[in-house]
Amino acid sequence: MRNLKLLIEYDGTHYCGWQIQPELPTVQGTVKRALEAILGEKVNLKGASRTDSGVHAYGQVANFTTDSGIHPLAIRQSLKDILPDDIVVKDVTVVPQGFGSRHDAKEKTYIYKIYNNTSETAIHRGRCWLVKRPLNLKRMQEAAKFLIGQKDFSSFQSAHSEADHSIREIHSVKVSREDVFIEIRVTGRSFLMHMVRIMAGTLVNVGKGKIAPEEIPAIIEAKDRKRAGVTAPSKGLYLVEVKY
Amino acid sequence: MRNLKLLIEYDGTHYCGWQIQPELPTVQGTVKRALEAILGEKVNLKGASRTDSGVHAYGQVANFTTDSGIHPLAIRQSLKDILPDDIVVKDVTVVPQGFGSRHDAKEKTYIYKIYNNTSETAIHRGRCWLVKRPLNLKRMQEAAKFLIGQKDFSSFQSAHSEADHSIREIHSVKVSREDVFIEIRVTGRSFLMHMVRIMAGTLVNVGKGKIAPEEIPAIIEAKDRKRAGVTAPSKGLYLVEVKY
Repeated sequence: MRNLKLLIEYDGTHYCGWQIQPELPTVQGTVKRALEAILGEKVNLKGASRTDSGVHAYGQVANFTTDSGIHPLAIRQSLKDILPDDIVVKDVTVVPQGFGSRHDAKEKTYIYKIYNNTSETAIHRGRCWLVKRPLNLKRMQEAAKFLIGQKDFSSFQSAHSEADHSIREIHSVKVSREDVFIEIRVTGRSFLMHMVRIMAGTLVNVGKGKIAPEEIPAIIEAKDRKRAGVTAPSKGLYLVEVKY
Repeated sequence: MRNLKLLIEYDGTHYCGWQIQPELPTVQGTVKRALEAILGEKVNLKGASRTDSGVHAYGQVANFTTDSGIHPLAIRQSLKDILPDDIVVKDVTVVPQGFGSRHDAKEKTYIYKIYNNTSETAIHRGRCWLVKRPLNLKRMQEAAKFLIGQKDFSSFQSAHSEADHSIREIHSVKVSREDVFIEIRVTGRSFLMHMVRIMAGTLVNVGKGKIAPEEIPAIIEAKDRKRAGVTAPSKGLYLVEVKY
């Protein structure tokens, strides 16, 4: 019995998220079926992050155990042949038996991409959030600092969250601009449901001048989802890296 | 009679290029049909650049004359409602009667995007050329300088070119790297068929060490297509701007 770890990049546009759902196209379901075809056995594939419908990943991590002796490089090549071109398994490696992609994750990094321009984009559609009003980068950067640390992020979680508690530890939040793109890079131990998207929606309100940067601590302290900004659309979100 | 100019962005992935062809999906055909539906008259739409199948554009320019009195902003809004989301008309403006998007073009800028990484990419597929071997940026930059100026670019044109002559004037060729992306930005008065793609293919050979930068002048002087590098795939090419 071997425990195999996959490093997966995907364009989430045409998937109803990572997690398997009957009758719906999911990334987990697509990779699992490909593995089962290659290995000729049932596969229980576990992912580090349950990305939402439309969310992308540069570095999703998943693992499964198998009795098969097929070489990891051969599995990777077969996955390349079978998988659609919007899912790429970049690496297949053997890991210790006890390793779990979800439970052993020490840190995750997400980026949220905003297209801050006056007109729609054909080329970058489905890969960023179009915000037409000019955003004030400096104010967004000031506001971002207040999101760092170990806090109760109730105000930044979906009403549908089923988490036991809402205390999370955010290591860094960086906001940068390059041409018409604004990127919010968030690193933390783990995240609540929709947490990065609500952070992005709130920072966009700051950039528009609707919220002052120094109002962020009060929004956090309120522990009230209604005090934060909108949930930014999933198409702008990317899972970049999971660290162990 | 008014002459209207369109500024068009498109993701060329699903089109057989700009130029209209019977029975095939083309950008020109798609925009022309949308305009005809809006204006209720035949439209003769002329584009600045006949981009190949799979080539993208941030700033294609096209124009047509019309007897319709519909406001340009209303035409733009109707185009947004009708066109598929991989074509965006960013601007519609009235221009003088004599203006021709192709013949009056003074300068065009293209970029060619290379994804220089060891594995495939799901997120950027269809939008760049994957080159797995590490490329030497400095050598590519040195080679690029030899492509600037007014020269006979016979070595850098498709065998199927129907141009009267092959002398063209290149204003600048800049090669830059950002993370795993290498971008070649080429500006010139006008271009031969596949010229930027053959330049990109040749510069990649330089980056791989197959061609020395100082060999470029001899390749140009040979006036022989076989001396230059491969025609880089169309998916990495973008028409960025047309100046008048």
